[in-house]
Amino acid sequence: MALKVCIIGMTGHSGYVTKAAEYNKDFYISAVSDGPEKAGCEKVFKGSQSSNPDVKKYEDYIEMLDTEKPDIAVVNPYCGYNAQVNIECLKRNIHVFSEKPVATELDELEKLKEAYYAADGVVFASMMAIRYTPWFAAAKKAIDAGAVGDIRLMNAQKSYRLGKRDGMYLDRKLYGGTILWVGSHAIDWLYWLSGKKFEEVFAVHSSKANKGHNDLEVSATCNFRMEDEVAATASIDFLRPAEAPSHDDDRVRVVGSTGVLEVRGGQVYLINENGEQTLPLEERVNPFDEVVKAVLGNNGDIVKAEDTFYVTEACIRARMSADEKKVISFNA
Amino acid sequence: MALKVCIIGMTGHSGYVTKAAEYNKDFYISAVSDGPEKAGCEKVFKGSQSSNPDVKKYEDYIEMLDTEKPDIAVVNPYCGYNAQVNIECLKRNIHVFSEKPVATELDELEKLKEAYYAADGVVFASMMAIRYTPWFAAAKKAIDAGAVGDIRLMNAQKSYRLGKRDGMYLDRKLYGGTILWVGSHAIDWLYWLSGKKFEEVFAVHSSKANKGHNDLEVSATCNFRMEDEVAATASIDFLRPAEAPSHDDDRVRVVGSTGVLEVRGGQVYLINENGEQTLPLEERVNPFDEVVKAVLGNNGDIVKAEDTFYVTEACIRARMSADEKKVISFNA
Repeated sequence: MALKVCIIGMTGHSGYVTKAAEYNKDFYISAVSDGPEKAGCEKVFKGSQSSNPDVKKYEDYIEMLDTEKPDIAVVNPYCGYNAQVNIECLKRNIHVFSEKPVATELDELEKLKEAYYAADGVVFASMMAIRYTPWFAAAKKAIDAGAVGDIRLMNAQKSYRLGKRDGMYLDRKLYGGTILWVGSHAIDWLYWLSGKKFEEVFAVHSSKANKGHNDLEVSATCNFRMEDEVAATASIDFLRPAEAPSHDDDRVRVVGSTGVLEVRGGQVYLINENGEQTLPLEERVNPFDEVVKAVLGNNGDIVKAEDTFYVTEACIRARMSADEKKVISFNA
Repeated sequence: MALKVCIIGMTGHSGYVTKAAEYNKDFYISAVSDGPEKAGCEKVFKGSQSSNPDVKKYEDYIEMLDTEKPDIAVVNPYCGYNAQVNIECLKRNIHVFSEKPVATELDELEKLKEAYYAADGVVFASMMAIRYTPWFAAAKKAIDAGAVGDIRLMNAQKSYRLGKRDGMYLDRKLYGGTILWVGSHAIDWLYWLSGKKFEEVFAVHSSKANKGHNDLEVSATCNFRMEDEVAATASIDFLRPAEAPSHDDDRVRVVGSTGVLEVRGGQVYLINENGEQTLPLEERVNPFDEVVKAVLGNNGDIVKAEDTFYVTEACIRARMSADEKKVISFNA
């Protein structure tokens, strides 16, 4: 029997789910609802109708969870509500596919972790979806195969067009900050590609030049000292010009003892003892297909809950560093 | 009458001078000498003979300065001796073209500044020579013309092949550290391109994976908070594979309120309201020709002493941050 899926909110990347619903017959979307921000869910409601013309719409997500009793909840309200919505789902033993950051404050993150470890065998996966792109997947494969030797230094970059944003973007409390919303991908790559723990971070961010978006930060840099003296930066901005050929300019450069690998412009470049080469890309994977597999016990390649919690902590500590203008330790 | 030039040591980039001597008739190399490290000067002696077969060779640079009484001294002994050699030159009112870093410790830097300000109208120029490459010069021109608007974020990168190094590289006291030797270019670009002052720095460095080069650091990252909340990183490494197509992989990415400019692979890429473009490069300039012009009162485009001192301070503070594992303030 196909898994029943409900979607909460429409701020994030629930498009992975509505798209997968069109071809993946192992699940269907039974209903969608507003998030706690009560900003509506029209976009995701329409998006869900293409696979299920009978999809229901709720205003209250708690009512939806208790009425529909879904197998999987897709959580993407305003970021500031992610933790509480995730906790409500986990309390009901519902599997979760959550937008990142899964929490925006350390105390909420702790409560979320408690709820996860108290739940009974649920899958808790986050939308660190850039891992699944053909270029990042190819980079990971090469690094794991030893293409650069021991990783010694990394530079991650996220650069987005700003455009005109409203809703959560205009209120830092609801949004969580740009280091969390945009930077979490970059910080995830640092951990995912190296497997090294974070030790200390010093970050800088600013909302200057944000074209009237209240306190929205549009530039940030982070410097992490990681395990084994690995040095790692994350550069994050919302200043990519409207005229740029793509929305994002995602990059990572991984410098190891025997090689340098770089993801840039959707390609993967490697220089090592075999000379220079452009690596073949992997197949594009929809992360929600992997969540469905995991829920069905079929070895889905999901972003593990432990990774998500750890990277979320790193993002929150980096934001704290930028806010408080000091180094933040991960051992505190 | 042509200016008389002496060269001290052979560790740095005195090749700019021996090369210019072959076509620039406004100066000649009268003599060369060992630096205080007494590691010889054979390479620079031979290099000087192509323009002056009668060039003299000294073992003691003080004796050379006092005997030859040159107009300009070219200073490139082991880095740890740069400050004291520069001071000896300035005391004698000799113009200086010095390898960077011009000092490796803050107290030496202070003494050097005192010697410079006490000297009578000398030109003190440093070998921040990458500024003079056709691509960095083109980047500077575009930025000064407003191509990116107000600078908000910068990422600078220096990546070198290590090869097999000896001499000063094997002793941190004589070498000064990789943030100073390699990173000083990157840190110079941050200041030169933006004109912003540094406020705080947090840096990480490591000598792991240095292939038997004692305490030589081969990886480092710096995160600077600059004036006006500008965020800036410098990524520095000696891990560029031997098989790479060039010795260095110099880059800078400058993100502004209205555009993004990037120097990479000897090209300059700009995206702003006019779309994407590759900028025309500037003419290649030999920095020593500019020093000679400056000494002759002909508006030489040199790296000003004040810039050199300030960037040297920034490099030393960044190295202190990495050594002491804490944020270093520039207002302390």
